[in-house]
Amino acid sequence: MTKYKVVLQYVGTRYSGWQIQKNQHTIQGNLKSALHQLTGEEISVVGAGRTDSGVHAMEQVAHLRLSEEMATEKLFRGLNGILPWDIRVMSIDPAPQDFHAQKDALKKRYEYRIYTGPVLPPFLHGHVHHMTRPLNASDMQRAAEQLCRSHDFRGFAAASTRVKSTVRTVFLSQIQEQECHLTYQIEGDGFLHHMVRNIVGTLLEVGVGKRAPDDICKILDSKDRRLAGPTAPAHGLYLMHVWY
Amino acid sequence: MTKYKVVLQYVGTRYSGWQIQKNQHTIQGNLKSALHQLTGEEISVVGAGRTDSGVHAMEQVAHLRLSEEMATEKLFRGLNGILPWDIRVMSIDPAPQDFHAQKDALKKRYEYRIYTGPVLPPFLHGHVHHMTRPLNASDMQRAAEQLCRSHDFRGFAAASTRVKSTVRTVFLSQIQEQECHLTYQIEGDGFLHHMVRNIVGTLLEVGVGKRAPDDICKILDSKDRRLAGPTAPAHGLYLMHVWY
Repeated sequence: MTKYKVVLQYVGTRYSGWQIQKNQHTIQGNLKSALHQLTGEEISVVGAGRTDSGVHAMEQVAHLRLSEEMATEKLFRGLNGILPWDIRVMSIDPAPQDFHAQKDALKKRYEYRIYTGPVLPPFLHGHVHHMTRPLNASDMQRAAEQLCRSHDFRGFAAASTRVKSTVRTVFLSQIQEQECHLTYQIEGDGFLHHMVRNIVGTLLEVGVGKRAPDDICKILDSKDRRLAGPTAPAHGLYLMHVWY
Repeated sequence: MTKYKVVLQYVGTRYSGWQIQKNQHTIQGNLKSALHQLTGEEISVVGAGRTDSGVHAMEQVAHLRLSEEMATEKLFRGLNGILPWDIRVMSIDPAPQDFHAQKDALKKRYEYRIYTGPVLPPFLHGHVHHMTRPLNASDMQRAAEQLCRSHDFRGFAAASTRVKSTVRTVFLSQIQEQECHLTYQIEGDGFLHHMVRNIVGTLLEVGVGKRAPDDICKILDSKDRRLAGPTAPAHGLYLMHVWY
């Protein structure tokens, strides 16, 4: 058995997210089927993070195991030859037998992209969230900063979240603005379901003046999903990097 | 009658180019039909350049005339509300009665984008020409420079070209390379049909070593389309700017 670490980039638009689901087009499902075509084997692929339907990845990491060693160059070319254009293997390397793409991830970075100009440039369609209301970036930054360090993020998790602990550590949470491009970056040791999009939905309410920057603390303290803002649309979100 | 100058941006992928053709989706056709919906009138739209099928525009300029004045803000919102997402009106302003988007254009800039890395990042799909063979950018630059100044460009025009004069003046013709992104920029007072793509097809043959940089002069002198390289694919080409 040989283990491989795969780095993927994908445009999430056409997919029902990372994870295999019955009768749905998924990233994991496409990889599994490409590997089957290439090797004849049923091979499972484990990803660092389960991106939701419509969410993009600049750098998703996955591991897989083949029963027989195959040259990485052959796997690389083979997979990219079979996979659809919007899922690309950017690199593939042999990995230690105990490497686990999800459990060994120390930190992940997500980025949420917002375009604030009056007309969405067509080349950005589906790749940014378009907001035509003016956003107060410094208020958003004051709110974003309050998410750093360890907190119980239950208030920002999907109501259906069922995990042992909802405590996560956020290392970076910042707003950047350059002309009409407003970007939110967050790095953490783990993310709950919908956590980034619920944070962004709340930050956007801060940005339009609908709520105060200090609301973030209140939502964290309350652990009540109903106090946070709506879930921001998937197509602005990117999984950017995974650290091991 | 009131005249307007419209600046458009479009992703050319889904269209059979700028110019109205029977039973084809075109940029001009979509604009005309959006104007009809908005005003009830049959309004003709004249563009600065007739981009080919699949060619993009970061900035196409057009003029149109309405029988009754309409507030530019209303036209702007109305058109963007009706037009499909991949054709956007970026600005619309009243223009002098004698303004002509095509005849008054002093200079245009086109850009051709090439990606040279082994795997095409999926976000660039349809927006760059992917070349996996290594390109010698300095040879391409030496070739590109020879196109500057006034020349008879018949050798680089589509064989079917029927115009009075095939002499054009090129002010800028340069290759830029940044990591895997190779870009060709050309500015001129006018362009013949397929001229930029035929130039790029020839420059790419120079880049892979299939021909010498000096071939450009030979093709210009010969005025023979058969001596130039193939027409580069449309999806790498952008109309970038029109000067008046």
